[in-house]
Amino acid sequence: MISSEYTRELLAEGRDTKILLVVVDGLGGLPDPRSGKSELDTARLPNLDALAASGSCGLIWPLGPGFTPGSGPAHLALFGYDPWKHQIGRGALSAMGLGLDFRAGDVAARLNFCTVDDQGRVRDRRAGRIPTEKGRQLCEKLAAIRIPGIEVSIAPEMEYRAAVVFRGEGLEDEVSDSDPQVTGVPPHPLEARRQGSARTVEVADAFLTQARQVLRGEEPANMVLIRGFGRYPVLPQMGEIYGLKALAVAGYPMYRGVASAVGMDTVETDWHLDQELAVLRTRWAEYDFVYLHVKKTDSAGEDGDFARKVELLEEVDQFVPRFLELKPEVFILTGDHSTPSVMRSHSWHPVPLVLQSPWAMADGLPGFAERHCRAGSLGMLPSTAVMALALAHARRLEKFGA
Amino acid sequence: MISSEYTRELLAEGRDTKILLVVVDGLGGLPDPRSGKSELDTARLPNLDALAASGSCGLIWPLGPGFTPGSGPAHLALFGYDPWKHQIGRGALSAMGLGLDFRAGDVAARLNFCTVDDQGRVRDRRAGRIPTEKGRQLCEKLAAIRIPGIEVSIAPEMEYRAAVVFRGEGLEDEVSDSDPQVTGVPPHPLEARRQGSARTVEVADAFLTQARQVLRGEEPANMVLIRGFGRYPVLPQMGEIYGLKALAVAGYPMYRGVASAVGMDTVETDWHLDQELAVLRTRWAEYDFVYLHVKKTDSAGEDGDFARKVELLEEVDQFVPRFLELKPEVFILTGDHSTPSVMRSHSWHPVPLVLQSPWAMADGLPGFAERHCRAGSLGMLPSTAVMALALAHARRLEKFGA
Repeated sequence: MISSEYTRELLAEGRDTKILLVVVDGLGGLPDPRSGKSELDTARLPNLDALAASGSCGLIWPLGPGFTPGSGPAHLALFGYDPWKHQIGRGALSAMGLGLDFRAGDVAARLNFCTVDDQGRVRDRRAGRIPTEKGRQLCEKLAAIRIPGIEVSIAPEMEYRAAVVFRGEGLEDEVSDSDPQVTGVPPHPLEARRQGSARTVEVADAFLTQARQVLRGEEPANMVLIRGFGRYPVLPQMGEIYGLKALAVAGYPMYRGVASAVGMDTVETDWHLDQELAVLRTRWAEYDFVYLHVKKTDSAGEDGDFARKVELLEEVDQFVPRFLELKPEVFILTGDHSTPSVMRSHSWHPVPLVLQSPWAMADGLPGFAERHCRAGSLGMLPSTAVMALALAHARRLEKFGA
Repeated sequence: MISSEYTRELLAEGRDTKILLVVVDGLGGLPDPRSGKSELDTARLPNLDALAASGSCGLIWPLGPGFTPGSGPAHLALFGYDPWKHQIGRGALSAMGLGLDFRAGDVAARLNFCTVDDQGRVRDRRAGRIPTEKGRQLCEKLAAIRIPGIEVSIAPEMEYRAAVVFRGEGLEDEVSDSDPQVTGVPPHPLEARRQGSARTVEVADAFLTQARQVLRGEEPANMVLIRGFGRYPVLPQMGEIYGLKALAVAGYPMYRGVASAVGMDTVETDWHLDQELAVLRTRWAEYDFVYLHVKKTDSAGEDGDFARKVELLEEVDQFVPRFLELKPEVFILTGDHSTPSVMRSHSWHPVPLVLQSPWAMADGLPGFAERHCRAGSLGMLPSTAVMALALAHARRLEKFGA
């Protein structure tokens, strides 16, 4: 396992087989104490249950036992990158996902529209969760900001969120957040955590000063908080290390961001599954590898809505035959991490995985759920092992050694 | 898994949840060929069986497949320290466990009182297993030893065992043992395995020469063997890396030694379970983490006494409800290593583990034994993963990455 990251390059072998990786965000769960059954236990999943019998199953650890991942590291691991070694700032992920022109040397950060009072104290860190359309209009206003020697690009994300990219000489990303995380106090002053980041603090301070002027009089979003400074990540590209032409079909920008960072093409789409399926069908012929992301299951888990997560899992199940109609040589359905509804958060628990291919062991499991997958033929694996299994079952990895 | 040791520091998050880790020494076993059942299979364990249904189970590898650990590395691994990287000399462990004044720069070693004949050949490496009280008296005699420029401290351990600490300039610990491991030959001369340890050889030789004089005429313990030279270990402290105020409740000195080396408070106690429980109850409110050690199961395994080990496991089981009465957020019962009675020794076999917490998957296993635990939701893990799981279930680890 240890050296797989370094040997992939040698082993990737050109083929025309196709791999479809469906990542159901927050897939894994925990039992509802009343029923003793997890979300997957509870859901009716005839198609996934059939795969658990005809395919290979296992459980994957995103970061290893005990460690709860954010979405960035959880996806990097699934794509085969050591998530402890390759760390991407959240601002950088957002900028990439929003399609901002973002290149080596640039620094990105996340913006939250917020509400401040007359003394400049934060009253609402999310400006009453303004609608996405309002956020878009405010970003257009912020586009008027000018900083000498710096190009500034801004793009709206969902609701009160946005991202900014600064381009210019001498920008590094070791800068603290202005978001104080609580209300009733002014935003934190930005601080360079290393000497080389002093210029970024200057630039971001100029940006915040002008943003305050531009947004004066807006209600409720009369200021921005800035956080998650990050440079453009330099990661090995999937085309080179795996020999795969890869596409990401993900409605939510951040997931396109991480996919783009590892060299996948991305396509803008809605995050509804039928929309994502439509895009997948249209582009399928062009690619060797498609990653398709299902967001809403995670949101239901984070809301603590067990019943809603069950419903959404049942919806995913209904899409499985439509995915299989495309006849990928390798079909994998798994999650980036668990999001048990009873915890209302991401968790460290290992995530169910099912893999269907002509070369998969038919595990004959009675269903697709945590308790069954742990008895599957793939056992318990680090998430970083998934890509090697995908390539192997696609017959895209050469024999190692004579 | 690989980098978890280095990221813990960043992720440990303060909470007031409590963790109780019960380590049943030599817990794992092997089937008695006559019954086909292991010690755990054979024992009546109603309380542990209930936990195997309501909690999460797995099997842990102390050092990885095939490697049999001593108690030191086995415990370091359980406490989350890479046992291959952090090695503590046995003498160092003993010295710490005995409460000797032992600091950075000092070198400790273990002493065995032994019997030598007129020609100085070892006749009994354990001096007929003299009683602990006799050992204590002989240590008082050895306290008369004087070595110029060196402070010598000596403390008795159980029976024929003792430990010595040398303090002075230029002491290193790469010194071979004098214990020849067999009888009928003289003790081995001490040898410096590296240049820097020559001074320690000089000092220890002076000690042995004087010990021979001091003990002349004693019967049967007329000499000492010296072994396990070790410097004071410098290890990351649990308070810093995990944010835990930790206590060790362990009757046997060596286990207090390793606990002390990783920064736990220790308390002197008898090694009977009811005594340890009494101490645990008294001190529970003060600590975030308590490690409680059960010694006798290992001794029964090493004696090859299958029936006795079964009895002792049943006794441990009876204590489980009393442990749970303290209402730890996380309760873990496992072993440092296996000690199969049929092998009469420590072994490499993976060790059963059960974890109870509100965030544990309910595995629904039919019982607590090797054969059941391997089907548990934690799968097979390195022992070094246990602390991360404990912290995670106590909600003491932050999410990693955005």
